Amino acid sequence: MKPLEVILLGRIASLGRDALEAQLKAGRVLATVPDPGAAARFPGVFEAVDVIVGGPLTEAIVTRAARLRLVHVPGAGLDGMGLDLLPSTVPVANTFHHERSIAEYVFTAMLHLSQRPDLSDRRLREGAWAGFVNYEPPVIESLAGSTVLILGFGHIGKEVAKRAEAFDMQVIPVTRSTPGWRDRLREARYVVVSCPLNEQTRGLLGSAEFSMMRRDAVLINVARGPVVDERALYEALRDRVIASAAIDVWYRYPGAADEICLPSNYPFHELGNVLMTPHVSGWTKLTIEGRMRDVADNVARLAQGLPLRNVVIQG
Amino acid sequence: MKPLEVILLGRIASLGRDALEAQLKAGRVLATVPDPGAAARFPGVFEAVDVIVGGPLTEAIVTRAARLRLVHVPGAGLDGMGLDLLPSTVPVANTFHHERSIAEYVFTAMLHLSQRPDLSDRRLREGAWAGFVNYEPPVIESLAGSTVLILGFGHIGKEVAKRAEAFDMQVIPVTRSTPGWRDRLREARYVVVSCPLNEQTRGLLGSAEFSMMRRDAVLINVARGPVVDERALYEALRDRVIASAAIDVWYRYPGAADEICLPSNYPFHELGNVLMTPHVSGWTKLTIEGRMRDVADNVARLAQGLPLRNVVIQG
Repeated sequence: MKPLEVILLGRIASLGRDALEAQLKAGRVLATVPDPGAAARFPGVFEAVDVIVGGPLTEAIVTRAARLRLVHVPGAGLDGMGLDLLPSTVPVANTFHHERSIAEYVFTAMLHLSQRPDLSDRRLREGAWAGFVNYEPPVIESLAGSTVLILGFGHIGKEVAKRAEAFDMQVIPVTRSTPGWRDRLREARYVVVSCPLNEQTRGLLGSAEFSMMRRDAVLINVARGPVVDERALYEALRDRVIASAAIDVWYRYPGAADEICLPSNYPFHELGNVLMTPHVSGWTKLTIEGRMRDVADNVARLAQGLPLRNVVIQG
Repeated sequence: MKPLEVILLGRIASLGRDALEAQLKAGRVLATVPDPGAAARFPGVFEAVDVIVGGPLTEAIVTRAARLRLVHVPGAGLDGMGLDLLPSTVPVANTFHHERSIAEYVFTAMLHLSQRPDLSDRRLREGAWAGFVNYEPPVIESLAGSTVLILGFGHIGKEVAKRAEAFDMQVIPVTRSTPGWRDRLREARYVVVSCPLNEQTRGLLGSAEFSMMRRDAVLINVARGPVVDERALYEALRDRVIASAAIDVWYRYPGAADEICLPSNYPFHELGNVLMTPHVSGWTKLTIEGRMRDVADNVARLAQGLPLRNVVIQG
């Protein structure tokens, strides 16, 4: 059987090449095209492609890809992938595998903000070593015995809860549809945001919600930036309405290859009570290999005429 | 019933004053004496004491404390508390409660070294924000799917294992008596040292053991420094025989109130692949409150003539 021709399109998909090739049995990687705008530099290649992994698609690419039989998004999200350009005959599949990695990030964030190992390390390197004689280390608040409210209880929320229970934390799982969920905010030391972004969840946490939270509350957003009102979050942290936050998902993302921007319209980078990370919580070997295993499996199914898995748009 | 008179002696015990007073029903805190060498500045006080919480005891204190009925160590360890000065009629009790806090530290260390949130934060604050366009974040190795060997499987080891299982890690629990435990070192990404220090465990990990470990191995010592050979550890980290380490327990501790020293005879502070913390892994509210609850409970038992708990030296 002739192997199916696969193109990795866009930056994220391209970074998965090794993981895909290690698992691809019914296809081969014809090309890796990190910049979709540069497709013209790959003559004859898109004309031969059976499966595009990644995006965003462009009109030029779709026009050339006359044999295209499957677009496989290399993650969960379909936004910004140019899928509206596709002819209605081509199916689209997606993949997950980020939930355990993101749950680990949530614990990294909670433990980092409660223990500040970076500051302990710096102090000891600078000589603040007197074993309780001259130096009184700050008393750490353990996760054990504390309460975590998980807003959005899908794959990620459930993995966070599983770990939180092993840490002897009290878990309050809620969704935006849970009656009285806002009142439960008062109880939580940690508030983890892990719901999808849609018109019902945009701005779900704003200044009203922050003022209900404990003064020692810690917010962790691993969902999408705009689930939390940008200005309200900045002001709550600046004015210490809540104690601190870990933010992995943001409000402004760079577009073109040479664009540079700040992650927010507000100067979060001037605040000392924020752990700010560049949307990396799911960017692990575990995620990449799991996703590329799904892609390789769907390529094999396509080659054998079997039903595809994780189809989000029927072709 | 007349309340028993309690003195908090030494720096660590003194820091527990609020927690003790909140829980003390059958006694009262007569004095807090952070520096045992300054006992002369508390005339008449040691003469009235029933229970000393802390240490180290001095000859002057023991001579004055004619009514002493209990010494309560505020932690697990009896070393360096001057207990050999005590008359044989006075019992000594100890207390634990650090195991969950130390298990949290172990996860802080593993997650910090695998994710380096401090570096992500710094890069983002410095403007390295291009959402996979211009900036390629390092791929994180998840804890899920990795293997942790726990050397010493007491209270701490068991709490680490419980959390590791929730993180989908493979757990290899061993003690120095487990046949063939050294061979298992080859399998482990993470090696957690959580055994007591004694003549059988001193130098238990040395250059022979480091050379058996994986090149990407991460050592975490929350036991006592000398369980791991000092020079062998320094050289293994410097020469990248293993990848990195988190060290909370050290080789040199300051003695007198004004003594300053480095934590090791080797310049660990020059290494970039070490998380070094000043023996703080158990220093949490959870530990302090649990320990002072035990102390208050033993004071009540003493007042009521009931058998004491956690007696380590019979009076």
